Amino acid sequence: MLQYNLGTGEYKNWIVSEVAFNPHALGKCEAIMALGNGYMGLRSATEESYVGQVRNLFVAGTFNQFDEYEVTELPNAPDVVELDIWLNGEKFSLEKGKIIHYRRDLNVKDAELVRHIIWENTRGEQFELTFRRFVSLKNLHLIGMKMEIRPLNCDADVHITSGINGQMTNSGAQHFHEGEKRIFDKKYLQLIQTTTESKIDFVVNAVHRYMIDGKEVETEPRMAIDRRKVFIQVSFHVKKGEAFTFEKLANVYTSRDKAYDHDAYSLDVMRQEALNDLKEEAKKGYDALFSENVSEWKKRWEQMNITIESENEFDQLAIRFAHYHLIIMTPAHDARFGVAAKGLTGEGYKGHSFWDTEIFILPFFTYTFPHIARSLLEYRYNTIEGARRKARANGYEGAMYPWESAFTGDEVTPVWGAVDIVTGKATKIWSGFIEQHITSDIAFAVWQYYKVTGDEDFMKRCGYEMLFDTATFWASRLEWNEEKKQYHINDVIGPDEYKEHVNNNAFTNYMAHWNIETAIRYYERLKESDPALLDALHEKIGVHEAYKKWKEKVDLIYLPQPREEDLVIPQDDTYLTKQIIDLTKYKKQTRVGTIFEDYNLEQVNNIQVSKQADIMVLFYLLENKFSQEVKRANWNYYEPKTLHDSSLSLSTHCILASDMDDRELAYQLFEQASRIDLGPNMKSSDHGMHTASIGGVWQSVVCGFGGVRMLDGKLRIHPKLPKQWRKLSFPIYWRGDRLEVTVTHESLVVKKVTNVCDAVTFDVFGTTYEVKDEVTIPLA
Amino acid sequence: MLQYNLGTGEYKNWIVSEVAFNPHALGKCEAIMALGNGYMGLRSATEESYVGQVRNLFVAGTFNQFDEYEVTELPNAPDVVELDIWLNGEKFSLEKGKIIHYRRDLNVKDAELVRHIIWENTRGEQFELTFRRFVSLKNLHLIGMKMEIRPLNCDADVHITSGINGQMTNSGAQHFHEGEKRIFDKKYLQLIQTTTESKIDFVVNAVHRYMIDGKEVETEPRMAIDRRKVFIQVSFHVKKGEAFTFEKLANVYTSRDKAYDHDAYSLDVMRQEALNDLKEEAKKGYDALFSENVSEWKKRWEQMNITIESENEFDQLAIRFAHYHLIIMTPAHDARFGVAAKGLTGEGYKGHSFWDTEIFILPFFTYTFPHIARSLLEYRYNTIEGARRKARANGYEGAMYPWESAFTGDEVTPVWGAVDIVTGKATKIWSGFIEQHITSDIAFAVWQYYKVTGDEDFMKRCGYEMLFDTATFWASRLEWNEEKKQYHINDVIGPDEYKEHVNNNAFTNYMAHWNIETAIRYYERLKESDPALLDALHEKIGVHEAYKKWKEKVDLIYLPQPREEDLVIPQDDTYLTKQIIDLTKYKKQTRVGTIFEDYNLEQVNNIQVSKQADIMVLFYLLENKFSQEVKRANWNYYEPKTLHDSSLSLSTHCILASDMDDRELAYQLFEQASRIDLGPNMKSSDHGMHTASIGGVWQSVVCGFGGVRMLDGKLRIHPKLPKQWRKLSFPIYWRGDRLEVTVTHESLVVKKVTNVCDAVTFDVFGTTYEVKDEVTIPLA
Repeated sequence: MLQYNLGTGEYKNWIVSEVAFNPHALGKCEAIMALGNGYMGLRSATEESYVGQVRNLFVAGTFNQFDEYEVTELPNAPDVVELDIWLNGEKFSLEKGKIIHYRRDLNVKDAELVRHIIWENTRGEQFELTFRRFVSLKNLHLIGMKMEIRPLNCDADVHITSGINGQMTNSGAQHFHEGEKRIFDKKYLQLIQTTTESKIDFVVNAVHRYMIDGKEVETEPRMAIDRRKVFIQVSFHVKKGEAFTFEKLANVYTSRDKAYDHDAYSLDVMRQEALNDLKEEAKKGYDALFSENVSEWKKRWEQMNITIESENEFDQLAIRFAHYHLIIMTPAHDARFGVAAKGLTGEGYKGHSFWDTEIFILPFFTYTFPHIARSLLEYRYNTIEGARRKARANGYEGAMYPWESAFTGDEVTPVWGAVDIVTGKATKIWSGFIEQHITSDIAFAVWQYYKVTGDEDFMKRCGYEMLFDTATFWASRLEWNEEKKQYHINDVIGPDEYKEHVNNNAFTNYMAHWNIETAIRYYERLKESDPALLDALHEKIGVHEAYKKWKEKVDLIYLPQPREEDLVIPQDDTYLTKQIIDLTKYKKQTRVGTIFEDYNLEQVNNIQVSKQADIMVLFYLLENKFSQEVKRANWNYYEPKTLHDSSLSLSTHCILASDMDDRELAYQLFEQASRIDLGPNMKSSDHGMHTASIGGVWQSVVCGFGGVRMLDGKLRIHPKLPKQWRKLSFPIYWRGDRLEVTVTHESLVVKKVTNVCDAVTFDVFGTTYEVKDEVTIPLA
Repeated sequence: MLQYNLGTGEYKNWIVSEVAFNPHALGKCEAIMALGNGYMGLRSATEESYVGQVRNLFVAGTFNQFDEYEVTELPNAPDVVELDIWLNGEKFSLEKGKIIHYRRDLNVKDAELVRHIIWENTRGEQFELTFRRFVSLKNLHLIGMKMEIRPLNCDADVHITSGINGQMTNSGAQHFHEGEKRIFDKKYLQLIQTTTESKIDFVVNAVHRYMIDGKEVETEPRMAIDRRKVFIQVSFHVKKGEAFTFEKLANVYTSRDKAYDHDAYSLDVMRQEALNDLKEEAKKGYDALFSENVSEWKKRWEQMNITIESENEFDQLAIRFAHYHLIIMTPAHDARFGVAAKGLTGEGYKGHSFWDTEIFILPFFTYTFPHIARSLLEYRYNTIEGARRKARANGYEGAMYPWESAFTGDEVTPVWGAVDIVTGKATKIWSGFIEQHITSDIAFAVWQYYKVTGDEDFMKRCGYEMLFDTATFWASRLEWNEEKKQYHINDVIGPDEYKEHVNNNAFTNYMAHWNIETAIRYYERLKESDPALLDALHEKIGVHEAYKKWKEKVDLIYLPQPREEDLVIPQDDTYLTKQIIDLTKYKKQTRVGTIFEDYNLEQVNNIQVSKQADIMVLFYLLENKFSQEVKRANWNYYEPKTLHDSSLSLSTHCILASDMDDRELAYQLFEQASRIDLGPNMKSSDHGMHTASIGGVWQSVVCGFGGVRMLDGKLRIHPKLPKQWRKLSFPIYWRGDRLEVTVTHESLVVKKVTNVCDAVTFDVFGTTYEVKDEVTIPLA
């Protein structure tokens, strides 16, 4: 059971609490309370083990392919968290004895996981246990753990087994060779493992420290090496009322780390440096190391903090929770890695990057940490050769980005999924073959980043090439329809994945058109401003000929128009002709995908039902191509047919509702969206966090209620505060300047706190304002 | 907690019972209560899951090598046993609620595992649950399971998840590609997986059936396919007092099965035949299939049953338990497979065959199921090319059998083991390099089988070639010592593995000498009786030249002699010069290997301490080469220095004590030996049964107390009944005839119940007897 209001004082609305232990919903807190720093993500499995627990430690970018039948995925690294704890001969487990007090807090401000328990064993002996844990944002390799045990009404013989366990798998797939196990000086444990296919070396070290009432005690541990495992066993006698403290520090280095991924790499050097690092850190101890972590987080909070004054205090926590996860999911330290669809919090989606990054997550970084946004876009640039290989393999030109992307940019979408209830076989997943809009989504994100930041340097190094080569892909992808004399895009999946093999998905066609149109515009602009760059790009990707093709085709692309009778834009060529059924049963469900318990995908394909926002996303991205009337008409048609079976759906609908000025509905949708992971559905996050939804929460606040949008290169702020909120403050960065925006029902205050540009201009409901220091604009 | 006296009526002394649930000693009953049929072994993990549980299903001969750094091992096949059971919304787990009644029985007569529980959930609702399970000895592919749930004081909503789970690993090593998951007719579950290196296809099928009060009920299951998993979920409402029955049948086929291991093999054919087999069996249902299993076991019991009338009824159970395990551990169906050191009951020793088979297990089969003994020896013949490769790789000639053997006969001993407490590194395992006595152990077993059975056909097809080529190995292995003018065997490990890199281990030298000597004898005999065979063997392995070398060297082999002063034979060149320490601490321990908590192997190497019987095994095998005085003297010297840290040790010492007529001591050692797995040490069997020890229990009874021995080709029966026993009856086969031997303190009765030979002669304490029908010999 989760509670959101237990933070007090400086931690008010900073704490997510689990107040009762539920052995049947372990996955929930494992995922939502996960720790991380973008370098690695540590799922918050408890120290003691339970059936159904999923221990995960992922290091960004360390992909490995188990075999030729599976796609590459982030391997589950050796576990350092598990402790086997015996108290007076009884194994500590919350499934036995009596829980007198239980609380587990994720403190998103300090990024610490704290569990406090008073437990009575079956003989009536009581123990107070406190577990603390963090993954350092200061030293990205470091994991800190601290356990305090205090016997309350007895003396205690405490016996602990602790070590490094490399028996972990990804649901059975083992990604590592067994490796070398070692104990140095009877103190430092080391496990070195190498991935089986990508041959990435992992060095994992651990060291322990023991205190009684704060005074360090020495002990000679029993040492053991087992299959894929190295560990120690220690025993202590603790008197009634004394506090026994057990500290464990661990670190992880891999040969994919930028510092080691070079020709002169030596495992011997890395293992030595990793061990030395741990030895140095160990001198400081948990508390000092944790302080360093808190300081680092403080800097992030200063840059990104959003204040919401709401009648539901949960809203304030929800945006902070989103912020927290946006930081821990993102490998900001290395432009070779993307954000995974489940972050680093679960095995779901295998650590792959989807359009989730560009359309749902990136806006937060573009507006808040532009250098991280750049890094994420550079990831797409760094993987563009994979996109080119995909295009060539499919008979196209240019860069065709993969639906799912790992380290190289080659397509890594798995081919088989859940059961088909009619055939009894696994269902084929077509996204890797025909869900193609990702390519224009990335182009759009490049453009958005460019217009918001003005980062011409990035554009010259990467951006223009990406814009042009994605346009070239689309130009080659278009299919000429002789009858209609139009270019069509047939046999695709749009954002709505319940419609496979459709022709002319509106989102796909409009975005492809936008992509080519935008490429033409920038080609022509560069022709004037920087012909040398254009020539260099021509050298590389033949951009002059490409331009001709863009021009030739762009105006002939079929863009589905609103129907005359009701202004509904057909989602694709056949959607509107399909069967309409009563969807009430599935809309009511808290679980997603329940429609597949009655229909298989082929059948769902023939029903007017949508998994998620499709045309709505188009309205959001290309806002000023569509009138309010058209938006409203399509909302009325598609919203009832949308199951929101994708976590990408609700936040988009929230923003759209806000755009249509339906603030009450927008707020309702925000409440739903912010509870996808954080809410009471105890199963929703089992396979990991919904990172796009988390990005969507930020977008709902800033782009929805805050009304921030970049339109045609210009900043627009149309605040639509819901009635439940008194005040909303958020920062955005515009062309290098930090703006601090405060919205109330009465006014919009924009403060410019830096001086990169002289002034920033922006639109508020049709009026242009300029801010040099601060400007207050009355609303209503 | 185990109990041995709960069988009543026809099951008296046939039942091993666990009478209390112990979540911290799960491995014990998983291993000792394992089911199997030689084709496969199913570790008896409970249906519901617990932390620390080890689910294992091994199919004999299906070795796979995870990677080049690990040795090949039996892969852990998909699990079909796990059930997730929810009763009125609460998950069934014995760690929660209250256990009102608990008992788990292994019925070794019928080979059924039965668990009977009355469980009260946390709300006071009581349920009676009975679980039954068998692995069929009739249809070797079949596993039957049956669960009955009766709500005692409430109605019950029963919800069960059941299927096939291919996420299993061998302590983290995944041996299978993910494979194909399928549900046929919403009823038959199928998982097809292929091993990663040996490319063996596994087809696993499962089907379910549901009854309420014996009446079949239909239901439409919820079907699911997940990673490496296919399963169903079903729900039933059961009224108070009604019995809900859940039957699950599963079968396993592999492309290593004799029926499929040929060039025309087709997976499609196998999967269809496997499914058809299950469909046919499913028509019969659990009860009928179980009856077929019982009938098959009845035949085995008729052939092997031993009766012990003892003041400790446990002794009767112990020998039956040994019999049971000897049957389930042995792949009697296929001469391409050996017996594993842990049978098919655990991951320990990776399914490899050691000298355990020939010296400890084979005698049971040679005397009781000669055709199975032949099959096991044929396994060694079928793998002789691997032994030849090992010889060549080491610069020797002939056949050098591997210390650990899998499918090909190549050496598969792992190279790294447990922690070295001094260096903190894994300890190097030298057995695969220098523990060489296995080669003469196999030769000895061939000869023993030949003399007991008279199977000349086997000798011509396999036996002579094995005898000769092992002799050739030894001849090439001998090292000339110019100073002593003797052949030495340097740098070996003898049976006592606490002494590595020793010269002239007595056991090794004597057995090598015996091997060459015996080869010479049979060469010369064949020269007379069957020169054509000899020529054929010469063609194949150059036996004529080899013979010359044998002759040249045999008499120059150094055979360590008893010291004049005390008749002690030096175990090796330096043993007697090593340090003597007080071993009391380690002898007292119930755990084995505790000396390594104080010393590393290098240090242990320099102490007069033995892991296990060494010279004692020599006295047992080559009994009439040594006088009683020498035996006694060496016993007195070595026994106090032997920690019995190997399970191979106690039974040998038991037999030796019996040979020396120390019946009290012999009985004490028997009691200890028979409790290695079956006894109260709840950790001893975690990694699997000690199969050699189980064979040793049989040898202790028949060869120890029964006094049966084949000496120089003749049968000897020197019964030494311990005073605790009133009567001992056992069968032995001699030259094709079945003899039924009954020993009391007053007499020895030998009954010949078949008529292959006219009469059987045998020695009893120096007098030769002949039996045609029955002979009674009074014993002083």
